Amino acid sequence: MSHKLLTFFKTHVMARRLCNAVQRNCLTKNVTTSSCRKVKEEVSKLLALKAQLVTEDAGPQKFTLKTPKGTRDYNPQQMTIRNNVLDKIITVFRRHGAECIDTPVFELKDVLTGKYGEDSKLIYDLKDQGGEILSLRYDLTVPLARYLAMNKITTLKRYHIAKVYRRDNPAMTRGRYREFYQCDFDIAGIYDPMVPDAECLKVVTEILEALDIGQYILKVNHRRLLDGMFEACGVPADKFRTTCSTVDKLDKSPWEEVRTEMINEKGVSPDAADRIGEYVRLNGSTELVEKLLKDEKLSKVKAALEGVEAIKTLLQYCELFGIKDKILFDLSLARGLDYYTGVIYEAVLTQPIKIGNEEQTVGSIAGGGRYDNLVGMFDSKNKQVPCVGVSIGVERIFSVLEAKLAAGDITVRTSDIDVYVASAQKNFLEERMKICAELWDAGIKTEQSYKKNPKMLNQLQHCEENKIPLAVVLGDSELKRGVVKIRNITTREEDEVPRNDLVQEIKKRIDNLNLNQLNGAT
Amino acid sequence: MSHKLLTFFKTHVMARRLCNAVQRNCLTKNVTTSSCRKVKEEVSKLLALKAQLVTEDAGPQKFTLKTPKGTRDYNPQQMTIRNNVLDKIITVFRRHGAECIDTPVFELKDVLTGKYGEDSKLIYDLKDQGGEILSLRYDLTVPLARYLAMNKITTLKRYHIAKVYRRDNPAMTRGRYREFYQCDFDIAGIYDPMVPDAECLKVVTEILEALDIGQYILKVNHRRLLDGMFEACGVPADKFRTTCSTVDKLDKSPWEEVRTEMINEKGVSPDAADRIGEYVRLNGSTELVEKLLKDEKLSKVKAALEGVEAIKTLLQYCELFGIKDKILFDLSLARGLDYYTGVIYEAVLTQPIKIGNEEQTVGSIAGGGRYDNLVGMFDSKNKQVPCVGVSIGVERIFSVLEAKLAAGDITVRTSDIDVYVASAQKNFLEERMKICAELWDAGIKTEQSYKKNPKMLNQLQHCEENKIPLAVVLGDSELKRGVVKIRNITTREEDEVPRNDLVQEIKKRIDNLNLNQLNGAT
Repeated sequence: MSHKLLTFFKTHVMARRLCNAVQRNCLTKNVTTSSCRKVKEEVSKLLALKAQLVTEDAGPQKFTLKTPKGTRDYNPQQMTIRNNVLDKIITVFRRHGAECIDTPVFELKDVLTGKYGEDSKLIYDLKDQGGEILSLRYDLTVPLARYLAMNKITTLKRYHIAKVYRRDNPAMTRGRYREFYQCDFDIAGIYDPMVPDAECLKVVTEILEALDIGQYILKVNHRRLLDGMFEACGVPADKFRTTCSTVDKLDKSPWEEVRTEMINEKGVSPDAADRIGEYVRLNGSTELVEKLLKDEKLSKVKAALEGVEAIKTLLQYCELFGIKDKILFDLSLARGLDYYTGVIYEAVLTQPIKIGNEEQTVGSIAGGGRYDNLVGMFDSKNKQVPCVGVSIGVERIFSVLEAKLAAGDITVRTSDIDVYVASAQKNFLEERMKICAELWDAGIKTEQSYKKNPKMLNQLQHCEENKIPLAVVLGDSELKRGVVKIRNITTREEDEVPRNDLVQEIKKRIDNLNLNQLNGAT
Repeated sequence: MSHKLLTFFKTHVMARRLCNAVQRNCLTKNVTTSSCRKVKEEVSKLLALKAQLVTEDAGPQKFTLKTPKGTRDYNPQQMTIRNNVLDKIITVFRRHGAECIDTPVFELKDVLTGKYGEDSKLIYDLKDQGGEILSLRYDLTVPLARYLAMNKITTLKRYHIAKVYRRDNPAMTRGRYREFYQCDFDIAGIYDPMVPDAECLKVVTEILEALDIGQYILKVNHRRLLDGMFEACGVPADKFRTTCSTVDKLDKSPWEEVRTEMINEKGVSPDAADRIGEYVRLNGSTELVEKLLKDEKLSKVKAALEGVEAIKTLLQYCELFGIKDKILFDLSLARGLDYYTGVIYEAVLTQPIKIGNEEQTVGSIAGGGRYDNLVGMFDSKNKQVPCVGVSIGVERIFSVLEAKLAAGDITVRTSDIDVYVASAQKNFLEERMKICAELWDAGIKTEQSYKKNPKMLNQLQHCEENKIPLAVVLGDSELKRGVVKIRNITTREEDEVPRNDLVQEIKKRIDNLNLNQLNGAT
């Protein structure tokens, strides 16, 4: 409102000045009076517009009613989907002994500075209102590192599920937003090589199995191997990180484009690029490990050998965990973030997901890796706490399930009410209230109409629409006989139970319904 | 860092200029060389300081490691307390059929403008980085109203649990922060008077019973009665809202102070203030309703009578819900927010809470009321959606429980691991991994050391510290005989089970432990 008015006033003031100037000119330079009149007319129009604006402003507010760009509300159906997904993920995290932490939604800007490279421009800053300079968190990894360093914690297995903020221009149709959930599992501490790293992969498989969203593979690679490979191919050490960022684009672009970028933008020699091209097309499992250990060029580079040996150990542990068939050792996997120092992961759905009559390719659904130097960046003595972790791409999962809901492939119940207390005739509000209170006090999920005399049809419709399984139906004749009717909404069967036994009877029936559902579901 | 350096450079540049100026003066105006030398010395000092700064900056970052003012991290113990409290609250909300929604953490600034009166200055604004002007949400009520208006929703029973932001200077020791949780239950829709309003009170009692944090009363009053009372006492209509804000201070200040503020700051006449003083000391139940209905002054004022009649209905419904003994009709209850239009509530703990050897007064622990005009502020046709709701003061509850934890009055388990897989000798990592995978795949919460050869003592200590009830202990001799040991950590009893029956045996024991715990707890 104030902005709209301000714009108007500026325009108005300019028009007035213009008019005055024109009038002065009229007097001094013999300009036609018609042009003067025209300006006056324009000013009158603007004044009328102003009057209209002021009138409008007296009523309710007039700005566009929307959520900020790149954000959205979650309605009850979306929240149900979201909570179901998160519950399954949390169950897996806790099965592995992870503890839960939370951090503030904003951090001192200095905490985030210098952690995200080019992407730092996407950070949301808060206005300086006097006091500290703050920014909204960009991910949950940097806040974890700050938390560990600040509290001098050297071992932690934690999960953190919270919203993060990026001023991107995301494709919201594909489930990408400026405000979105991250869902992270990380293990901090000095341990034996690849033991926690392998558990992260096990956690991802358990989650993807629990969510049951289709076949997947877990790509793995190692930053030491990538560095060693660049060295072996003749890339200068100061270009390892930028070359790595370019390799990261291989999941979206063909090799030819990536090669061109390496040569033209990153200054890698064509020969080196071609050598890299030979390696990044390799993927496999133990046999690839053995091949690389014997590779003429790589076997001469310490970093490369260390990386391959680490992958060898990882594959061995994955075999013990029974997940080796899901793992693909892939030399083209690079991951965007600078801070990884060891193993890197990415889970990818290998089949498009069927939504209605269409198929949607989802691609990457989890990612992570080892970052041994991030905590040290916050410690005054540069003391390191090695970490490894994985982030589940829950927004993509929500997006797929919401599309399935929209296509009618799945249904959700947004409330879990078991009993609706209805009245067949007028003037039963008081009796309904008493029964509701009895049921609530017995822990039974119960609802009634907030109207004094609701129509029977509307009450039953509410039950059907909301899939409420049972209704208690109150009627004059029954209450006089000291009974109430219980109606099964699905079968539409009704029978009478003594008013005094109502709570016990309802409990029995809910147990039976749950049991039937359980048997039906397995 | 950059800020620190910048400050230095500015000082440095100024000193250089000063020095040059002084030198020029030395040459031209015959100033003593000693003052020249002094300036040079100062510059040298500054340069040394700069060198030091640059050296420091090459290492890890040097800013103070903290969370922003008024915010905090939640560690695993605090999160466990928090999640336990929220789970109990959500159980009650869902028992009443409430659905869950969520909204973005920030809103267009215009959405929040003009909703919070004086407190608007406490809103956190985001920096204008090109694009929309945004602010962090201040509560969950205005976002709900925006959500209802934007989506043209006319009926909804929803809960919303999320963090809100206020640039206050809170007493953090008393559980007040700049970032804090709100936990709201609201019913929107056109219904019969006081039916949803009474259910909100029922919800609050169920929550306070479930949390079991001491005796409480639910104060109720009505904005129409307050307005009618002000009218009857001779307050001009345009001073109702500000007088109401002053009455709201009665829970913290004595009547004399409130009276003085009314007269000196709000321009209420001393006579009118004294008449208000007579009313606001009244509280009670049905008998007070009857007394007020016959009150000479109030009974002549339509608004007052409407308010009292509404309270009469509310008390009647509370009786049907079995909670009337918890309700106190209190004419001094006013509530701060402008947007209430009908019933207002406040739940207050009536006893101090014992924490260690000390007692802490908690006071208000929930509040709310009816706001029938807020949604209309967002609708272009001013279409109203009447709402009533209540907000649970979870931060105060967290604060009490955290203090109890610190005092050793309660303990919490931050992970729910049931089984620890330990090795009694070296070289059992592979076998441990296989067993862990079996247990995880059977859904059993399992953990092991991430070290290849952990010490037996450390492993058992970990179990005791984390209250893990069972350990599987691997040893050479047992494995050769095809058995493994299961150790009960509490009793320290160990017995052997066949390796192949391990999963079944563990499941059986966990069920027994849970059963025992359940029986012990009731």
